[in-house]
Order: sequence, then structure tokens, then C-alpha cells
Amino acid sequence: MVAVERNLSAERIERDIETLAGSDYTLSSEAIRRYAYTQVYRNTLDYFTRELEAIGFEVYEDPVGTLVARNRPRGEPAFGVGSHCDSNRNGGRYDGTMGVVTALEVCRLNEELGLDLPLQLISFLEEEGSGFGQMLLGSRIMAQQVTEEELKERFLAIDDGRSFWEHAQEAGYEPGRWQESIHVLDGLTGWIEMHIEQARVLQDTGNRIGVVTAIAGYVHADVVVHGRGDHAGATPMDFRLDPGPVVAESILELERMARAAGKGTVGTVGEIEVHPSLINAIPERIRFSLDVRGVDEDAFRGVARDIAAFAEEAAAKRGLTAEHHQRQTLPATPLDGRIVEALEGAARVTGEPYMLMPSGAAHDTMCVADHVPSAMVFVPCKDGISHSPLEEASPADAALAAEIILNAVSSLDRGQAP
Amino acid sequence: MVAVERNLSAERIERDIETLAGSDYTLSSEAIRRYAYTQVYRNTLDYFTRELEAIGFEVYEDPVGTLVARNRPRGEPAFGVGSHCDSNRNGGRYDGTMGVVTALEVCRLNEELGLDLPLQLISFLEEEGSGFGQMLLGSRIMAQQVTEEELKERFLAIDDGRSFWEHAQEAGYEPGRWQESIHVLDGLTGWIEMHIEQARVLQDTGNRIGVVTAIAGYVHADVVVHGRGDHAGATPMDFRLDPGPVVAESILELERMARAAGKGTVGTVGEIEVHPSLINAIPERIRFSLDVRGVDEDAFRGVARDIAAFAEEAAAKRGLTAEHHQRQTLPATPLDGRIVEALEGAARVTGEPYMLMPSGAAHDTMCVADHVPSAMVFVPCKDGISHSPLEEASPADAALAAEIILNAVSSLDRGQAP
Repeated sequence: MVAVERNLSAERIERDIETLAGSDYTLSSEAIRRYAYTQVYRNTLDYFTRELEAIGFEVYEDPVGTLVARNRPRGEPAFGVGSHCDSNRNGGRYDGTMGVVTALEVCRLNEELGLDLPLQLISFLEEEGSGFGQMLLGSRIMAQQVTEEELKERFLAIDDGRSFWEHAQEAGYEPGRWQESIHVLDGLTGWIEMHIEQARVLQDTGNRIGVVTAIAGYVHADVVVHGRGDHAGATPMDFRLDPGPVVAESILELERMARAAGKGTVGTVGEIEVHPSLINAIPERIRFSLDVRGVDEDAFRGVARDIAAFAEEAAAKRGLTAEHHQRQTLPATPLDGRIVEALEGAARVTGEPYMLMPSGAAHDTMCVADHVPSAMVFVPCKDGISHSPLEEASPADAALAAEIILNAVSSLDRGQAP
Repeated sequence: MVAVERNLSAERIERDIETLAGSDYTLSSEAIRRYAYTQVYRNTLDYFTRELEAIGFEVYEDPVGTLVARNRPRGEPAFGVGSHCDSNRNGGRYDGTMGVVTALEVCRLNEELGLDLPLQLISFLEEEGSGFGQMLLGSRIMAQQVTEEELKERFLAIDDGRSFWEHAQEAGYEPGRWQESIHVLDGLTGWIEMHIEQARVLQDTGNRIGVVTAIAGYVHADVVVHGRGDHAGATPMDFRLDPGPVVAESILELERMARAAGKGTVGTVGEIEVHPSLINAIPERIRFSLDVRGVDEDAFRGVARDIAAFAEEAAAKRGLTAEHHQRQTLPATPLDGRIVEALEGAARVTGEPYMLMPSGAAHDTMCVADHVPSAMVFVPCKDGISHSPLEEASPADAALAAEIILNAVSSLDRGQAP
């Protein structure tokens, strides 16, 4: 294993993060607000370009603006590292950006230590969807998971309602060649994304590193329970068709089911909308949302299916009805066992506390993993706070992650070598 | 008992209701919208004035506009009948107005049948609060349950924000003499208000008449459960402080407690407000409203107290906190046993199905009952729908109520006579 001067890495990472929190790099003075085709986003790509060119990388952008940097000619084998450097509109300094900064540090260490590992850094466009309301947009374009019609007509800028296509052209890109984005992956032998955890498992378990074994899939759905609106004072308990208790039973049952399913399955009711919402009216209907996730397809899809059936049955038992609409679903993404093993090995050697864990949140790596063996590394973020100016993460943890990634790539490179 | 030609009464009641649903009597073409100091409200008072003067009643208005009509000189003993003839802003034809129309029919029958019972009709101002956002305003003014400061400064018109005081003056009234409103009750030996039920108990039990034994008191309150907002995907079940299950347990417990308390106690959660309300976020906090009512003070106040304690305990068990704020409370109003008995006797004689029941909704009679022996009569309304243009009630039921009220007053009058 390569010995890394972690303090030096932490200092450089901190400096990068500090710089990219400056007024040239955010539209807001109270938060990080940075999204595609703004000047502050351009400045951010330029910063990475300068830093990467300084260590001998060739830097280019794909037809829509995903940044790619290589220390080998295009098309030759290389190992991918990176994340995204856009933010949500009221964001913090670390979500995404710390992953690109850490990937940059991996590239720096590779040069400084003379390892000469073949590396490719990627910073994906519009992971947060702050520009056009579309999450993982750059990596979905790369993975051909969008349509031309969506890019031209349906993905509209939050700021001015004009299309993604128009904005991309105006910024000097060639959206007409969007399908060529897939070539970003040409020659990639593997991919590792570092990201802040966005939850509190690492903090609360005292671990500095999470080696991600899979990214959760999810079902997003709504259940509407239809009762009968009646006067809250004038309607005796036995004359009611109140959707409230049905919703209550469903919330408790979802909690029970998610725990029982295990394997990291989680279930959340994040929205409850009561109609008409008056203190003195028995609700006519209540809608509640379902967010069910997990890395085990059978487990989380089972919960999503069973809770819908439960709500319908609980409603029927009380003489009401319930209906269920799925909004969206994505399958779980298993990560590559060999890369996970290499990361775990590299983490173990450092002597620092680490754990294997799933990712509950979605990441660009979901789009990469369909094409290239992939894995992720998490570092803690304070109290799990993310998507907020209060977001906090430690450059020292990121430096540790850089060392682990470097050593994992190095061991994979040796393993791959003939 | 006096024999009444019910069909004729029903026709007259239907005609009155039809007339008062005409365009001269409502601000909306889609609903009844009628409130204090509008021209349509004035027209409505004028209609009743004409009809009452036609049968020899003296009609006047109190200093703020509550309409009073008597067939005896002011101050002499008389029995009170009436209700209110304003509507909510998207109201139906029956709520309130049918009570005044039925009282008018009682007065007509009294004259026609030569009974010569001493009667006083009252139509209270602003029961619904559509003009100034204050429910039971006319009867509260009469019962001295307001302050001069409220009338001058705090009760503001929904339409233009100007004070009740200003509007009353502009309409030709003398709000400065509001305290004299109490004299509306001078000489009243009793009071009966007829009203549509606003729930479905009469319909669902097949009764045409409800003799009201008490008007429920209530506690209106809010409970806020404070948890911790976390990422719905990234936060394992065991790391959550989700207020949702605490709210769910409280909703189910309120239902159980209200049933267990009996004596007509009811409990309702009509509002649930989730913060931040995102499908993929564990709520940081949830507020829910409590409406607990009943005619038995100990029973309903016990439930209101116990459910607040339950929510706090349920929150604590899961490591969360809950706080409870009372918005408003009113005591239950027992109605007068002798008048209830007289109404029940008169109902029994008709051979029509009737029942004794509490009123869960508030009525002007709550303010009258503190000063004068009072009771109420309910008639069914279709499917319990009220405060809606879809409101429906039967003139035949109202005619039956008129006969019962007339006979009850008559028997009380005989009982009172030396």
C-alpha cells in the first residue's frame, strides 16, 4: 500500500472546498447555488480544468458539458474517479463538490507519488436538477436514459422556462451530439465516486469511511384514502367514515413492514395532505406519499406492494376506499464486488474505522454502473445534514477517502495487469 | 293538541325557502351567500318583516340588526322562536333560514288557529361569521360576550377590512348602544330554535325530528410533534426520529378514547400539517389539530386532556417531543328539561319518528340558554351535507317541526297559566 501524507491532502482538499465556496462560484451569498450554464458553474469547471492541467491531465467536456480529464490518451484504458460539482439551490459546500475535489486529490497523489496509474476524472452535469428540475441529468444523458424530445421540449429551465437544448447551445455546447456522451465511458476499467453520506449512520456509529455495497432502488407512490366529509361536532363516532384512522394504521404498518423486511429496507411517509383541512371537519379524503427503498429488490418492492394492499384493506374494513398510484420507480444498483473488496482492503489497512453500507440516496454512479464496474465511498456529514448551507464534512475524512481510493485503484491495476 | 294541516304549512315553508333563494336574497348565483349589512341581507329581513306584519306582529331590530317580532307589547311575557337567516359564503338554502321560516310558520299557525299564544320571533345577526369572521356574533353581542374594543377594532369585515362598528353605523344601526341588545330577551319565558341537523344521524336512523337535549361544548387544540428531518432514503429505520408514527398512534388513540368516553363524546383530527412535506424527507415536525366535543363536561374534557398527555408520552417513548396548545374552548350547554319534555310530548303525539339527541354543532341557542330556558329541534338534512349549495332539507319535516313547536309552546303556556 502507498503511504500518503494525509495532512497535506486534507489541506489541499480544504483549500479547494474553500475556494469553491467563494463568491465567484455561487449565485447566493447565503448558500452554495450552482447549476449548469451559469457563470459560477463555468468558473467551477475552469477551476478543475486548471488544477488538472497543472498535473498533466488532458481536459475536455462532452457535448453537453460533463467534464472529463485523463492522464492517458482518449480511448485508452483508465480508472474513473469523480462526482458532480453542481449544487441544489440552497446547498452546502460538500455535496458533490467534495467528491470531485477528492477525485482531484487522487489524481494529484498519483502524479506526486509517481504511481502513474491510468486515471480519468469525471464531473457530471446537473446531478441535483437545480437548473432544469431533472436529477442525475448529465449521467442520464451519458447513459442514454433521456430522449431528444425531452432535451428539446420537456426539460425546461427553472429560471426562465427555456429548454435545456437552447441553454446548452447558448453556453457553446452541441446538444445535437448528446448521444456521443456515452463515449465518456470509453476505456473505463472501473469507477469510484466519493460522496458525503447525507445521513448520520457514519457519525452515529463512529465510522470515518463507508464502503458502499449497493445503491438503493425505490418506489415513490401516493395513497389516497376516500372517506366522507362530515361535521366534526355533529357526527357521532359510529356514523363516521373518517380516513384519518386508515392513514394512521398505514403509517404504523409501513414502519412495521420496513423493519420486518430488513436488508436496509426503509419506508417513509413524507407528505400528508388532508382535504378540506379544517379543525371542525372530518376529512373527506387524505393523500399520503410513500417512499420505499432498499438494495434488495424483493424486499423493498414487497413492502411497497404490501403497504398499498394493507391501506386498501384497512379502508375497506372501515367502509372506506383507498387507491394507490405509483409515481416513479428505480431498481436497486448492486455495486461491483471486486471494487468493493479492493476498497475494503484499502480501508482496513489504514486502521481507521470504516463500515460496509448501502446508499439510500441516488447518485450518478447508478447510471455509470450499468456500463462500468462501479463502487462508492462515503464520508460522514455532520448530523446527516445535507442540501443546506449548514452541511459540514471533514477534509481529513476526504483525505482518508482519497488514500483509500488511490490504494484500491492501485491494487486493482496490479490485479488487472497481465 | 292542536291539529295542523301540515301540507299547507309545508307549502308555505317551501315558498318562503324558494323566495329567499332568489337573486334578490343572495350575492352568488351558485350558492346562498348572505351576510350582515349587504343589500341581500336587508332584503331578507324586509321579507320577514312584511310576512310578520301581515299577521299582526310588531317588528323591530336591536341596535346592531338582530330582528325581533312580537304579537305582544315589548316587555310583556312571550315565548321565543327563531334562528338566523345569514348564510356562510358558499351556503345552502336551509342552514338557519329554514329555522326562521319555521318560526314564522309557528307564528302564522298561532294566528290562523286563533291560539293567541304570546310569541316572539328572533332572527340573529351573523351566526355564520361570513361578514366579520365571528361566529354567533349577534347572539354573543346580545349575551354581552363581546367587548366594545372587539366591535370597534378587532372584528373586521372580510370584504374590506373595515370594522364591524363602522359597517353597522353605515347600515343605519347604533352600535354604540350594543349593550341594550340584551333587552331582546326581556319577557321571554322560553326559547325554541329549529335548525337542520348538519349531520346524518336523523337520516340514517330514519327519524324526522330530533329533540335536542344539550349542545356540545368543545376543546379546540393543536399538538405539534417534533422529530428530526432526515433523508428518507439514507436514514435506516433505527436511526429515525420520525414524528409520523407518533401522530398515527395519537389519531388511533383519540378514536379509542372518544368511543370509550361515550355520552356522545367525539374526537376529530381535521388538520395534519407536515413540515417540510417532501416525499423523500422524513418530516421534521407534524402539527395536528384536535376537535373534542361532548355534552358531558367531564367526558369530553377528559379526552382532550388525556389525548394531549398520550401524544407527549408516545413522542417521549420514541425519543421525540410533543407540545400541546389549546386554541379555544366552550362549555357544554344543557337545555331546559321542561321544554325538552314538552317537545318530546308534542312529537310523540304526531306518531312520526323522532329521537332525543345532542347537538354537536354550536348554535345561537348557546347564548340564549344562559338567560332563558331553551331547547332546540332538529330536522334531517340529506346525507348530512351542510354549508354547501348541495344542502337539502324537507319542507314537510319543517312543517312537522312547526306543529311540534306550536304544541309544545301551547302546552307550556297552559302549564304556566295560573
